[in-house]
Amino acid sequence: MQIDLNSDMGESFGAYTIGEDENIINYITSANIACGYHAGDPSVMAKTAALAKQHGVGVGAHPGYPDLAGFGRRNLQTFPGEIRNYILYQIGAMSAFAKAAGTSLQHVKPHGALYNFASENEGAAREIIEAVKSYDPDLILVVLSGSIVAQLAKQAGLKVAQEAFPDRAYLANGQLAPRKLPGSVIHDEAVVRERVVKLITTGKLISIDGKELSLKADTLCIHGDTPGAWKLAKTIRESLEKEGITVAPLSSLTLNT
Amino acid sequence: MQIDLNSDMGESFGAYTIGEDENIINYITSANIACGYHAGDPSVMAKTAALAKQHGVGVGAHPGYPDLAGFGRRNLQTFPGEIRNYILYQIGAMSAFAKAAGTSLQHVKPHGALYNFASENEGAAREIIEAVKSYDPDLILVVLSGSIVAQLAKQAGLKVAQEAFPDRAYLANGQLAPRKLPGSVIHDEAVVRERVVKLITTGKLISIDGKELSLKADTLCIHGDTPGAWKLAKTIRESLEKEGITVAPLSSLTLNT
Amino acid sequence: MQIDLNSDMGESFGAYTIGEDENIINYITSANIACGYHAGDPSVMAKTAALAKQHGVGVGAHPGYPDLAGFGRRNLQTFPGEIRNYILYQIGAMSAFAKAAGTSLQHVKPHGALYNFASENEGAAREIIEAVKSYDPDLILVVLSGSIVAQLAKQAGLKVAQEAFPDRAYLANGQLAPRKLPGSVIHDEAVVRERVVKLITTGKLISIDGKELSLKADTLCIHGDTPGAWKLAKTIRESLEKEGITVAPLSSLTLNT
Amino acid sequence: MQIDLNSDMGESFGAYTIGEDENIINYITSANIACGYHAGDPSVMAKTAALAKQHGVGVGAHPGYPDLAGFGRRNLQTFPGEIRNYILYQIGAMSAFAKAAGTSLQHVKPHGALYNFASENEGAAREIIEAVKSYDPDLILVVLSGSIVAQLAKQAGLKVAQEAFPDRAYLANGQLAPRKLPGSVIHDEAVVRERVVKLITTGKLISIDGKELSLKADTLCIHGDTPGAWKLAKTIRESLEKEGITVAPLSSLTLNT
Repeated sequence: MQIDLNSDMGESFGAYTIGEDENIINYITSANIACGYHAGDPSVMAKTAALAKQHGVGVGAHPGYPDLAGFGRRNLQTFPGEIRNYILYQIGAMSAFAKAAGTSLQHVKPHGALYNFASENEGAAREIIEAVKSYDPDLILVVLSGSIVAQLAKQAGLKVAQEAFPDRAYLANGQLAPRKLPGSVIHDEAVVRERVVKLITTGKLISIDGKELSLKADTLCIHGDTPGAWKLAKTIRESLEKEGITVAPLSSLTLNT
Repeated sequence: MQIDLNSDMGESFGAYTIGEDENIINYITSANIACGYHAGDPSVMAKTAALAKQHGVGVGAHPGYPDLAGFGRRNLQTFPGEIRNYILYQIGAMSAFAKAAGTSLQHVKPHGALYNFASENEGAAREIIEAVKSYDPDLILVVLSGSIVAQLAKQAGLKVAQEAFPDRAYLANGQLAPRKLPGSVIHDEAVVRERVVKLITTGKLISIDGKELSLKADTLCIHGDTPGAWKLAKTIRESLEKEGITVAPLSSLTLNT
Repeated sequence: MQIDLNSDMGESFGAYTIGEDENIINYITSANIACGYHAGDPSVMAKTAALAKQHGVGVGAHPGYPDLAGFGRRNLQTFPGEIRNYILYQIGAMSAFAKAAGTSLQHVKPHGALYNFASENEGAAREIIEAVKSYDPDLILVVLSGSIVAQLAKQAGLKVAQEAFPDRAYLANGQLAPRKLPGSVIHDEAVVRERVVKLITTGKLISIDGKELSLKADTLCIHGDTPGAWKLAKTIRESLEKEGITVAPLSSLTLNT
Repeated sequence: MQIDLNSDMGESFGAYTIGEDENIINYITSANIACGYHAGDPSVMAKTAALAKQHGVGVGAHPGYPDLAGFGRRNLQTFPGEIRNYILYQIGAMSAFAKAAGTSLQHVKPHGALYNFASENEGAAREIIEAVKSYDPDLILVVLSGSIVAQLAKQAGLKVAQEAFPDRAYLANGQLAPRKLPGSVIHDEAVVRERVVKLITTGKLISIDGKELSLKADTLCIHGDTPGAWKLAKTIRESLEKEGITVAPLSSLTLNT
């Protein structure tokens, strides 16, 4: 049994700091590094790629909408082809810093509003897939488990890492419970640990309304933008390893199974 | 005898248009494509890379300062490492569009204020060289003929294309005559043609004050941002070819001789 | 009988030029000047305000979404209060250039996607109204004739200028015919002139499906961003004046009738 | 005896936070609010203006270079007129939020690299003065005590508040000791308090090399961008008030004496 732990990193910008990258890097295996559109800047990207390389953590591009003011969390109308080109631009830029750090790009994970939009919108999904494929068909695409983009990417022959959220509740149909629902975010660390171990060992979760559901999880998203978030990363990792589960970068996992 | 003709391209941005890329592409052999910092955007980059590929024109990155408002023509103070990271970012981004267009990046030519600064500032020159080398040591770096960056890049083992300006007068020491000097820009097409042919066949130019000087020219810069600029490109190319000079992309020239 | 002719101006940005402001300024009476969010920059704003002042043309702020890359034509999700603050920011900035040019701000006209969104979305409309009112309750708000924002602004006690589009067809219900409908844009100048005169003298228009409809028009929008657009402005103005209709800035019209 | 205490505020941007405005606002009398060029955004500006108004703190515009990536700390070449227009734009924008918060703009203090440049460059100083004067000749301009811009602004008839830095050492000629000199930044709170009291009560300071110098101080700059900076503000204010010195906003001080 194997799992990857990923976290968003490199979200600082100029004089502005977000995240505790130096801490969380110790517990994760794949880093989604912001590419300067919704967060990050060239110097942050360089530094973060080097940090990941140094810790044996897989370097990923984390492309978002060009919306620093909204941190990529706001929907933005795009004209056909724009999403493809936004993704290509950011993958290319991130790849340069991976190379300069002595490694290469492992994966691509869309960010925020773009991640959500591609989970349910076929057009956006196809543009993302086209971008990744035309850049490097061996790149791993990280997407919401069970989403439209996950299905389409597998059909297109990409390596797909399906992502689950340890601290988020799910509906019985396998979708994330909307944040406005009470109980949609799980704050109890013990519960999070227990759910994570069950999910990885059995492929099952209990939904927000008490039903058992199956969920494919190649990688778990560890949030890093709140102070102390790395402690949850640490505890999740320790719980997994205690169960004999291998925690390893996406590049060493068997995907598309 | 061989020479490359290069031109800045892909300088449009969103609803804004600069240049007549569809015309000038017919007469040049290498395209310096803006990378979204001083000009250009992802969709323009995609389109311009495809246009170059279609015409057999070498695709180059044309990185500048992050200054769309000033078109990269204003000096910007940078902290150590920033120029390296700006260059890496833009090379990477441009490379993605070259790949997606079915080709690969041929060269890098810094733009505007950054080009000028690197011509005479060793620190800036070294950051540019480091960026290119760490991304891909086989990339060709296009720089001002006889400049500091040209010397340092050759010493660093990079392939260097030294650039001359057909419509600009030179001082006797080989530097460009400052634009404020009368006669610094040559508007007479016949004179431009004559100078170009003499330069490529003999390696010599007559300076603004009437002295003969030697100048290395692997590539000639053809300005494309004034309406009708492509006509000068056409006439220069025809004059060269009439003399039996091969006009070909940088990648097929013998450099560092 | 009186009417204002307005046009978007000051849409150039740095090295990029859009519009022929120096021509169209001769035929209009109110200028909607871009405020640096979707187009324009401080130097363009200064120059355009001075140009309007010199021609006795009313100076207006033309605030849009912060989306230079999309020219303010793309929908952008905003969180509550953001539209109000975007509008305040841009009104204030434009006002400074009006003052520096020796005049004062006459009106505010939202741009592009924001204009359209406020025409039908009550929340956006209320934020715009709040911004204008809290900045200066004597400013005139220019909005789509018959729209939600027009109604709400009048209820809020603002001076409202209802806008019609001479070269656009209307549905029988008074809404603009969508651009994808054949015949939605009227290219025949004679037809445009005839419709304009009928509209101002009778308050009536013939809809795209042949029905007569009433439309309130305090100001007509003259497009300026296509080459030669000023010729249509000239012909419209001459047709109106030949009929004895006074063409005058919004500030000298009787509004909210 | 009277003095104003000013601090930079409103430097957060979107999801990014800098400063502890809610704390420091309790101890200062004038707020320099970032205007969206080097820091700040419309929603932060609105919130910060309201916070200042609520605490009876004077609202000021804190315009900088358009350089969010460099926090306005990098020199940027500008073409003639650009500084004037950058200042007008930002003053106007800030003024809108002052109005919307139920107050009006009290002062303007240039930021970072622009502040430093105007301290010694006559052209930049004149552009700033022209911008302030053409917007509102009653605005107070806050500048480095004894600088070129201070002299020129007084000659131009502006109200000038000369600024001193409690935690910075000075050269014997009245200039700030460069940061690279040992001892240029004073970290000992007791020393800072003592210097401040001496300066306000006697107009004298001891220079870094032990000489007594005279310095005009209408306002003291309290840094707010390091965690806990408000504690220094508190201690400085208490020391001043213990000596019977009135701490009050610039608008209530007698300037240009």
